[in-house]
Amino acid sequence: MHDAYSQHPQSLAGSMITLARTPVRSSLHSISFRRAAHSHSRSMRPLTPADLNPAVLNVQYAVRGELAIKAEELNEKLRSEEHRDTLPFKKVISSNIGNPQQKGLDQPPITFTRQVAALMEYPPLAEIVKDKWNPDVIQRAKQLQEEIGSVGAYSHSKGIPLIRKHVAQFITERDGYPSDPEDIFLTAGASAGVSLLLNVLITAHKTGILIPIPQYPLYTATLAQFSGVPLPYHLSEQDGWSTSLAEIKAALAKAETDGKVTPRALVVINPGNPTGALLDRQTMEELVWLCEEHSLVLLADEVYQENLHRRDEHPFHSFKQVVRQLGSQIPLISFHSISKGVFGECGRRGGYFECCNISTDVRALLYKMVSVGLCPPLSGQVGVDCLVRPPKPDEPSYALWKQETDDIHAALAHRTQVMSERLNKLPGVSCVNSPGALYLYPKLELPQNAIDAAHKLGKEADTLYALELLGETGICVVPGSGFGQKDGEHHYRLTCLCPGVEEYVGMLEKFHLNFLKRYGGA
Amino acid sequence: MHDAYSQHPQSLAGSMITLARTPVRSSLHSISFRRAAHSHSRSMRPLTPADLNPAVLNVQYAVRGELAIKAEELNEKLRSEEHRDTLPFKKVISSNIGNPQQKGLDQPPITFTRQVAALMEYPPLAEIVKDKWNPDVIQRAKQLQEEIGSVGAYSHSKGIPLIRKHVAQFITERDGYPSDPEDIFLTAGASAGVSLLLNVLITAHKTGILIPIPQYPLYTATLAQFSGVPLPYHLSEQDGWSTSLAEIKAALAKAETDGKVTPRALVVINPGNPTGALLDRQTMEELVWLCEEHSLVLLADEVYQENLHRRDEHPFHSFKQVVRQLGSQIPLISFHSISKGVFGECGRRGGYFECCNISTDVRALLYKMVSVGLCPPLSGQVGVDCLVRPPKPDEPSYALWKQETDDIHAALAHRTQVMSERLNKLPGVSCVNSPGALYLYPKLELPQNAIDAAHKLGKEADTLYALELLGETGICVVPGSGFGQKDGEHHYRLTCLCPGVEEYVGMLEKFHLNFLKRYGGA
Repeated sequence: MHDAYSQHPQSLAGSMITLARTPVRSSLHSISFRRAAHSHSRSMRPLTPADLNPAVLNVQYAVRGELAIKAEELNEKLRSEEHRDTLPFKKVISSNIGNPQQKGLDQPPITFTRQVAALMEYPPLAEIVKDKWNPDVIQRAKQLQEEIGSVGAYSHSKGIPLIRKHVAQFITERDGYPSDPEDIFLTAGASAGVSLLLNVLITAHKTGILIPIPQYPLYTATLAQFSGVPLPYHLSEQDGWSTSLAEIKAALAKAETDGKVTPRALVVINPGNPTGALLDRQTMEELVWLCEEHSLVLLADEVYQENLHRRDEHPFHSFKQVVRQLGSQIPLISFHSISKGVFGECGRRGGYFECCNISTDVRALLYKMVSVGLCPPLSGQVGVDCLVRPPKPDEPSYALWKQETDDIHAALAHRTQVMSERLNKLPGVSCVNSPGALYLYPKLELPQNAIDAAHKLGKEADTLYALELLGETGICVVPGSGFGQKDGEHHYRLTCLCPGVEEYVGMLEKFHLNFLKRYGGA
Repeated sequence: MHDAYSQHPQSLAGSMITLARTPVRSSLHSISFRRAAHSHSRSMRPLTPADLNPAVLNVQYAVRGELAIKAEELNEKLRSEEHRDTLPFKKVISSNIGNPQQKGLDQPPITFTRQVAALMEYPPLAEIVKDKWNPDVIQRAKQLQEEIGSVGAYSHSKGIPLIRKHVAQFITERDGYPSDPEDIFLTAGASAGVSLLLNVLITAHKTGILIPIPQYPLYTATLAQFSGVPLPYHLSEQDGWSTSLAEIKAALAKAETDGKVTPRALVVINPGNPTGALLDRQTMEELVWLCEEHSLVLLADEVYQENLHRRDEHPFHSFKQVVRQLGSQIPLISFHSISKGVFGECGRRGGYFECCNISTDVRALLYKMVSVGLCPPLSGQVGVDCLVRPPKPDEPSYALWKQETDDIHAALAHRTQVMSERLNKLPGVSCVNSPGALYLYPKLELPQNAIDAAHKLGKEADTLYALELLGETGICVVPGSGFGQKDGEHHYRLTCLCPGVEEYVGMLEKFHLNFLKRYGGA
């Protein structure tokens, strides 16, 4: 019937308003009304990107950008019988994103966590599994149920009080300094917390946020969204991607010279993403004092704190511990997540941030803001509880938990080692053997022909490299332009999450050598 | 040790920078450095609300505002043995928020949904429950697992493709018009979708968004956050909270007269929150043509579409159906959620929005924005699948599903009926007997003494009323000032979710009569 309307000549144009005010109920009137009104549709301006928030237009997020969209298309082709055989590979390997449990990578979830989660979803299950699952699993779920009630209910907007208490205990034990549950906000992953803080810290004036280069593009994306000004400071690749105070000071001096930008916060990602670098304690102390001197809020992204491949040589220290030990008064927000570590529970969307040296009125304002979004997902909150309260050595679930987590740690360390070693042997590739996180960020010396070919396509050469890698092998990585690099340099980020690392690196090697040959670099 | 630093005289002020540049590793040097550096802390300016984004300072969200915070404090007291007996009630009843499964309300979750969710959390469970749970439950979980893999993995940022396909099928069947899975975005509840759309639609210029008054305060809160301009249009209480075109046109005319504001979108909440009103089809058509005429995006908040207490008299029509039937080209975004209806799964944070008449480039921009947040929680996405694909009549889980959902529908309709009937009998109270949603929004005629007493405290009289109601009965409602009302009017919103409606209304009645007596109104 609606087709008839759309084909009808627009004969009653102009009379819509009058008719619209008349209460017409009969179908005849209604049809007249519709015809009349429809004639107005010619004045309807369609919505175009130019109508939208220009800040939003500026947002870039390469981890799920051009390469990831191309990978999706290839996945679609692999699913179609017709196109499947036109591709030179049988599966896409998503090395673009730290998503350990995704299909094809299949890092197993921790049994303890998932059994607790299943019981939270359906409490009568306890009766069915009581002789099959460990009693500490059932006990944990029961304790959480008594506190929470149903996981189908909104919780406190900052998160379930008992779980925040457990987070505070975890932090206290980790750092040796007290933590207050009121300073803990549970979040839908660390990203939600970072977004909130940047939204709150960026004022209408030009607000500068110091970010490392290379960086995880959440930061530049969120700065673009809220019209903040990124103040980039370069990490030192030749020194294992270390953080240089001089670089940060230079960025601050530049902001001052440029005049209109007020530096407000310093973002530090430790262990680094995409670099995998770990800050040494001395540098951390210097960064804290720098924040003191310049009245900067320190935003410490510590989501990879459990991903340490060479713990003795490169231990993790939290900024909270350093700040407390120094007796510093700098406002510090530190972020943690259940998505990384060996937990890898990205899909639950869970995490937390801790406020340190944040006044109660600012904290109340953060609470107000999170209350508009009601609460973080309960599945993520329950995940946080399991992250910060794993089974203890004297508990029945400990042995399996230990074995599962040790296996994942070992596999990550092994893959990182093999990948960096073999990549470093390739002509034109150098790669810091990262001591932490889930990534490598190899540097590429690309042939001039490749650079020229890329520029002809309006692309960076590392984007061309990544696109060809994807097209030939099915391996999806993110070009360095997505994370930032010095002019004229080329990198890519890949995760250390592949199954069958030997075969995987073999594919990278073969592609690289062919690429060099193709563009006359070998 | 850090205490010693903080007590140390600030004797080395000024030398920090030099020291910080020197690689000092010995503990002696380190101590000197810390002392020196610490002396700089005097220049640290603490972070105050005045330093923060002024837009954020303006955000108000009454559903979790003053009353809810007061209710939290009372809950704390009830938990403490020392204070428990000082209160005139034994529990707080949170009628401030539509949270059906919360403790004390305990609306049961749908068994089918929760069994599927438990299997998704821990797939080996299938073996244990295969002779105990219905085969369609196990089959559903298996199908979703094959598509998704682990619920611990990030999904596609718009949501799992198969679930988006199911949503599109649900919409197609509901409306009789096709829906494209590519137009569906799964979200962390409807709020996340509304926030995204408002962020995208509000440009740097003064962007006006038409919102109903009274409204769900998510809208004013999000407009404040993104510096949009609310263009309020009043609903007509005397006509059952109906929507008047004349009111909207007046608001548009005012925006034009005021000059600087560009109307960009019309928000319609149907069924209404807090009013519970349902739009009739005629009004919906008129609203669509009005959007055509003024090139407005229609934001249709339809999260209560399943909450219909008198379906025959007040049916629900989706705006998607109306737009398609009229052949209109207006850009429409419609929001749905798993938090409401009889599903009530607020804690999972699940929902979706559908784009209708949105160009692929604008849709790509929305995709880019959601990709920065990675993906909605998988528990919410699985919930959406169960919402849009409940058991069918010939499936084993149907009978229980039918009984459970019928019971919840009946309880809601009964409570709404009893509450509105009894409230209407109270002196100075009038209450539209709402045909939909989960709320009532009674109007109060309050004694002048109460108004004066409230003003002396710097509060609205309905806030005073709600605070005293909470303090005397433990019932937490939200004053009308949180949703908007005409000057001099007073209302409050309460949910129709209480257990034991007779006793509950009895408490409201007793309180009300005492309040009138106290302030000389009876």
